[in-house]
Amino acid sequence: MTKFDTVAILGVGLIGGSIGLGLRRRGLVRRVIGIGYREESLRVAKELGAVSDTTLSVAEGAAQADLVVVCTPVGRIADDVRAAVASCPPGAMITDVGSTKAQIVAAVGHSLPNGVRFIGGHPLAGSERRGAAAAEADLFVDRVVVLTPSATTRADDLAALSQFWSSLGARVRCMSADEHDRHLAATSHLPHLVAAALALATPEEALELTATGWADSTRVASGDPELWRQIFASNRQALLDSLSRFDDALARLRVAIERQDAGEVAKLLGDAKQRRDLVQSHDPSRAV
Amino acid sequence: MTKFDTVAILGVGLIGGSIGLGLRRRGLVRRVIGIGYREESLRVAKELGAVSDTTLSVAEGAAQADLVVVCTPVGRIADDVRAAVASCPPGAMITDVGSTKAQIVAAVGHSLPNGVRFIGGHPLAGSERRGAAAAEADLFVDRVVVLTPSATTRADDLAALSQFWSSLGARVRCMSADEHDRHLAATSHLPHLVAAALALATPEEALELTATGWADSTRVASGDPELWRQIFASNRQALLDSLSRFDDALARLRVAIERQDAGEVAKLLGDAKQRRDLVQSHDPSRAV
Repeated sequence: MTKFDTVAILGVGLIGGSIGLGLRRRGLVRRVIGIGYREESLRVAKELGAVSDTTLSVAEGAAQADLVVVCTPVGRIADDVRAAVASCPPGAMITDVGSTKAQIVAAVGHSLPNGVRFIGGHPLAGSERRGAAAAEADLFVDRVVVLTPSATTRADDLAALSQFWSSLGARVRCMSADEHDRHLAATSHLPHLVAAALALATPEEALELTATGWADSTRVASGDPELWRQIFASNRQALLDSLSRFDDALARLRVAIERQDAGEVAKLLGDAKQRRDLVQSHDPSRAV
Repeated sequence: MTKFDTVAILGVGLIGGSIGLGLRRRGLVRRVIGIGYREESLRVAKELGAVSDTTLSVAEGAAQADLVVVCTPVGRIADDVRAAVASCPPGAMITDVGSTKAQIVAAVGHSLPNGVRFIGGHPLAGSERRGAAAAEADLFVDRVVVLTPSATTRADDLAALSQFWSSLGARVRCMSADEHDRHLAATSHLPHLVAAALALATPEEALELTATGWADSTRVASGDPELWRQIFASNRQALLDSLSRFDDALARLRVAIERQDAGEVAKLLGDAKQRRDLVQSHDPSRAV
């Protein structure tokens, strides 16, 4: 069990649906209320068993919850958090699952009405599939979830939210919103930007000669353009900083190839392999 | 059956071993002779059933074959082809499986002694695994194999080699060595270069926050550095040209992000997704 009795999930897509399904299959809370803007998403989530109740009204759903999890696209999370806070009962907690954190945490602010407390969160899980129909109760098992407490976060709130994610199987890490955004710029946002540029730079007539290497390297470029536009916009400076480091690394490789410096090319490729293989050995079973 | 009676495979690693296994499981030729520089590789290939005979002598193996397939690393293929040609019986054919073609085709030359004919080849198949122990009889099923005939190639030789690969399940495409190298620079060599730069640009302290996106985008950087150094060196100009196109695409994305031009960022990401999704729809079952 978690310490929460009723969890409201605002936005029942892949992530929100998987949280609900994970909670209900494990019997971790008494009620899961799905809040959505479209009847159809709520119907799918209910049929799947990801939520026990549904409502189209943020006010109605939030009023019954002691934890609200906001799972809407990054660009609207801050507004949705504020909307939910306005209706939460005194002492309720609220969190989110957005891919960037500093802008959201700043927009929500520290001091919320009614003794409601917000802690930012980000589960590093997902897939190209979208919607509650793709939800999995075990989506977060062995995945990292980052929580971003602020200077005013209460220790018991952080412990409760950590335990919430741990009970879904996740490995919880805590850091500042800025540190999260800096790291994710390098490990998620830059790879997406680079994959998009790779796809754009591949002439259409060459596509027939692609194999698994190209497919792997460009796979994330299949993601939803509008979602990723929002992510880039909300982590612009860290992404540009990461891009500068990438440009430097690529320039070193380019110069070594231009100069036909076999030793330097082999050294750089060897260093890259070593860095890459550090991750394979972390968690080989999930190929993350 | 193919029109070949005895095939010699020079270099019985993953590719050479898979050719042998595919030929023998399908009963396509009478004998498969494995030629290698190390006793151990030959022993593994023989035990696996990938070859019927083995020899450490290129001269001895080539002398018995009506087709020699050179499967050694790119940087030594031209030398190995010439060594085999010197011992081939009159009228024999020879081909290779190197990842680049123009340099090899030029180094081998058009006019070979003894009426021996060479046609360059490249199966777009493989994996991070290496050695005959990883060989699969179906490695080439539904995979593209490129053949690069020259102005002096005889039509019946090209037909025989096409049929050889088709009988292993591959889809054969013919083009010039230059066209092959230009396309592969974009679809294979550039993605490898970019993956290496991505791995190098990821700070070690951020590695714990990698998920499937980073893992997919950098997977090819786990490849053998020396093998890829040779591939880059043998296709240098086409790779640098591809890199220029990539730099242009990445610069357009960077400028749009810097200017906070939401419309342009969304458009570029949408174009990239469209290009990427063309390939998914080609061959969804293999995720190539």
